[in-house]
Amino acid sequence: MPSCWLNGSFVDESNAHVSIFDRGLLFGDGVYEVAAVYNGRMLDADLHLARLERSLTAIGMPMTMSVGEWTTVMQTLATNNAVREGLVYLQVTRGVAERDFPFPATVVPTMFSYARPKSLSADPNANGVRLHAVPDIRWARRDIKSTALLAQVLAKQAARVAGAFEAIMHEAGVVTEGGSSNVWIVKDGTMITRPVSHDILAGITRDVTRELAQELKLPIIDRAFTIEEAFAADECFMTSATSFLLPVTQIDEHVIADGAPGPIALQLRAAYLARAERLTA
Amino acid sequence: MPSCWLNGSFVDESNAHVSIFDRGLLFGDGVYEVAAVYNGRMLDADLHLARLERSLTAIGMPMTMSVGEWTTVMQTLATNNAVREGLVYLQVTRGVAERDFPFPATVVPTMFSYARPKSLSADPNANGVRLHAVPDIRWARRDIKSTALLAQVLAKQAARVAGAFEAIMHEAGVVTEGGSSNVWIVKDGTMITRPVSHDILAGITRDVTRELAQELKLPIIDRAFTIEEAFAADECFMTSATSFLLPVTQIDEHVIADGAPGPIALQLRAAYLARAERLTA
Repeated sequence: MPSCWLNGSFVDESNAHVSIFDRGLLFGDGVYEVAAVYNGRMLDADLHLARLERSLTAIGMPMTMSVGEWTTVMQTLATNNAVREGLVYLQVTRGVAERDFPFPATVVPTMFSYARPKSLSADPNANGVRLHAVPDIRWARRDIKSTALLAQVLAKQAARVAGAFEAIMHEAGVVTEGGSSNVWIVKDGTMITRPVSHDILAGITRDVTRELAQELKLPIIDRAFTIEEAFAADECFMTSATSFLLPVTQIDEHVIADGAPGPIALQLRAAYLARAERLTA
Repeated sequence: MPSCWLNGSFVDESNAHVSIFDRGLLFGDGVYEVAAVYNGRMLDADLHLARLERSLTAIGMPMTMSVGEWTTVMQTLATNNAVREGLVYLQVTRGVAERDFPFPATVVPTMFSYARPKSLSADPNANGVRLHAVPDIRWARRDIKSTALLAQVLAKQAARVAGAFEAIMHEAGVVTEGGSSNVWIVKDGTMITRPVSHDILAGITRDVTRELAQELKLPIIDRAFTIEEAFAADECFMTSATSFLLPVTQIDEHVIADGAPGPIALQLRAAYLARAERLTA
């Protein structure tokens, strides 16, 4: 059984439990992060932990552990569990208290983290994935990476039932993002992705992909696009911390362009892997 | 330490824990109910458990324990913990599984329940409470009584910071409901409350209050109303399972009518208490 980290101690996962009065369980009152491990080393832990602090601030919680302390915990989990490629998950909840919606007078956050292997450099999904379109029924603060994720659970379950790899969510036909990813299209050589706001999560991989595109002199427009535009795009791809960048070759019955991974998607995925290699080698 | 019930056993609350891999903790992937205890007996357990089944169905889960079994658990908790007036809480999650958004292939639900004393018949809030208006930022399926409650946590925290008893949520000025209650107004002798849809929770206490109003020949209109209409109402009140019916005498700085509990609210609260007495004596 792998070891995880819970409230300051490394413990066997089978011994990692929280009280039924944990607000994470009672209210979804917590936030989380998932960061990649590459060559056995944490990738962009600093960016993920900066977003963790933004999420905590947005729900009125202080960051009680420093970026350095968190990074040490995450790296130790990756190392101790022999994860060469994979992910580290971390979650912070508003702790254990008598059930009452407003914040407890005294908050002792519950914090835990665990690591998992996952194929990143040789992900078979890099050959192209299919998305399933669903209405976006989430709350209005999607910029907060909260664990109140039931809408995403239902969206991604609907995608699985439809035989798709991931959901693509839209409001009245305007795409917001994927079930747990950001979605991009390419039209006439220009990459298009939705600007960051309360309407979507500010993806770390999205930001890094932007930087790589700028280095490669690929034009980007930040604007919302419709699901119809995605159907008719020259390329479509998705980004997330634990899939890096995956070409999207189909959305429901709509084949994107000729159904093959697009050249810009492949170019950016290669650049992403090269950057990951450079940072962790 | 009181005893609670967890996955088939009555245990001390200090021993009631779930895995960090419980989907209730990782995703807010679960539903709950809160029912009142009056004269030491469960009130409207059948109505709450019927709603539990509706919530479970809406998130793709079967009800694995019967209404009779649940009622026995809840009544046992009330009795064993000597709760004469109070509440029993119950929660069902999609159980423990490796973290992945779609439903696990095999689901063993996590189920737990606990009881608490709370003054219901002599609630000092029956003298009138103040609400604090906040935008409703919740998801689109508010009819599901899910534990993904972060929006309500933030709403009720904002209410507490504002010195109010409860939040009143609105979308572009149109009232949806309270933070954990339904809200009603009275104008020119007619009770007005928002019709049931995906936009609000179908309150059990709301339904019972309707029935009592009909018995008392009080006219009711089911329609949405604005926060401005609430400010200018002759009466305002809120209903919930563990506060029954409480007069609202102020919303932020707006005093409702003359600032005293309204006669219809008081008449209905008395009828509610009489019914509770009749059902449990």
